[in-house]
Amino acid sequence: MKNPKILITNDDGIFAPGIRALWEAMSEIGDVTVVAPNTEQSAVGHAITISDPLRVVPVKRSGGFEGFSVSGTPADCAKIAIKSILMQKPDLVISGINSGANIGTNIIYSGTVSAATEGTMLGIPSIAISLDSYESDEYRGAKQAAINIAKHVLRFGVPKGTLLNVNVPYCLPQEINGVKITRQGHQYFKDEFEKRTDPHGRTYYWMKGKIIDEDESLEMDGKAVRENYISISPIHFSVTNESYMGELKSHFLNE
Amino acid sequence: MKNPKILITNDDGIFAPGIRALWEAMSEIGDVTVVAPNTEQSAVGHAITISDPLRVVPVKRSGGFEGFSVSGTPADCAKIAIKSILMQKPDLVISGINSGANIGTNIIYSGTVSAATEGTMLGIPSIAISLDSYESDEYRGAKQAAINIAKHVLRFGVPKGTLLNVNVPYCLPQEINGVKITRQGHQYFKDEFEKRTDPHGRTYYWMKGKIIDEDESLEMDGKAVRENYISISPIHFSVTNESYMGELKSHFLNE
Repeated sequence: MKNPKILITNDDGIFAPGIRALWEAMSEIGDVTVVAPNTEQSAVGHAITISDPLRVVPVKRSGGFEGFSVSGTPADCAKIAIKSILMQKPDLVISGINSGANIGTNIIYSGTVSAATEGTMLGIPSIAISLDSYESDEYRGAKQAAINIAKHVLRFGVPKGTLLNVNVPYCLPQEINGVKITRQGHQYFKDEFEKRTDPHGRTYYWMKGKIIDEDESLEMDGKAVRENYISISPIHFSVTNESYMGELKSHFLNE
Repeated sequence: MKNPKILITNDDGIFAPGIRALWEAMSEIGDVTVVAPNTEQSAVGHAITISDPLRVVPVKRSGGFEGFSVSGTPADCAKIAIKSILMQKPDLVISGINSGANIGTNIIYSGTVSAATEGTMLGIPSIAISLDSYESDEYRGAKQAAINIAKHVLRFGVPKGTLLNVNVPYCLPQEINGVKITRQGHQYFKDEFEKRTDPHGRTYYWMKGKIIDEDESLEMDGKAVRENYISISPIHFSVTNESYMGELKSHFLNE
């Protein structure tokens, strides 16, 4: 195969350390273009920008890192890169390396995953990759995982409409136990709202909470990562609950 | 059943005509609380607000309409209503009536659906309801549909993790052909970016495009609505592609 064309994006913004790590990794295996948000866009879900125009600005940084910053969401970045910035369709879209895992219920809040979903929807094999730490700059394990999984996807492809959601444990490369192919588990963020009063006497609320994950099977994304495995989940956004179609039909026929 | 407690939200904002129509409809069958964004939040997907505090402001309007506006997304509204504003868990969350259908691929961009999804995730039977028009103020058909389907859900419940995504055709009530239980179809927004230059000589881009829907089966959401049926799709966010798990495992075992 000639050098594959790889589009890199993320949700932490173009100046985040994770996207530079991913750029370094992908530069070893292909021709890389970076198109990423100009600001942090965590927890934006699959938002797109329809009421405001988008700005696209070339970015150059030390070490040869270059790309385009976009005044929009991760999904916007994937869209505008593929539709307007790139001269030809990329062979792969890879989004990350996110600061913090994207696991269980939280997948649907994830900007990182949404950018890869957008790539998938535009017919391009796509990967989301996240590191299970909000503080680490230890990207060696995640970079090696990104290279291995990107090579795999470039060779075998993925089914239409499906992307790979990869989560890498927070540990030294030699502490990683291997790879587990996993399902979206039941991890969720048990949130609550803390009520405060501002200096002007007005009330405001902060969302806060903690992660709950009671999955005990290594077939689940959260448990695999906790046990120092790289978790790879094949995910898609076919949202119909097929198993309930029949019952619901019978209800409405009888009315 | 005693008067059910119904939480109403939306993504077009608390001052949109669709939420007032829904408030009128739901007031006929239960005790209603409205908690909705203070501004329009279309296409925000499942965004939540984690880096900014939220403000909650009581709103009163003519005709007895009252509720709380929130400086956040539809998912924020459902969360803060259930966790902080309401004294007890509601029996039903209903989001809408959205201006414009939420069908096919576009379901994942939908703030209307995300608010109902949040209700589902918090264990409450939930409905998203949208009208297939961006301009109409003809809500009679949609109001009647909202009442019928809400009564159904209050009586029968929905499976854990599943919500009903309802789309109402844009026509007079007497022109509605009935109800179809449908699947998420293949409708998508074929978008492109129009490049313009601002008065300062700088480039910007507008996202634009058109809806493509080639589904021909009345079992698909888009086709059902085009044929003047009320479409009800049971949807969930179990995103694992189970059918690809085995093949993916075999790849990584062989490496």
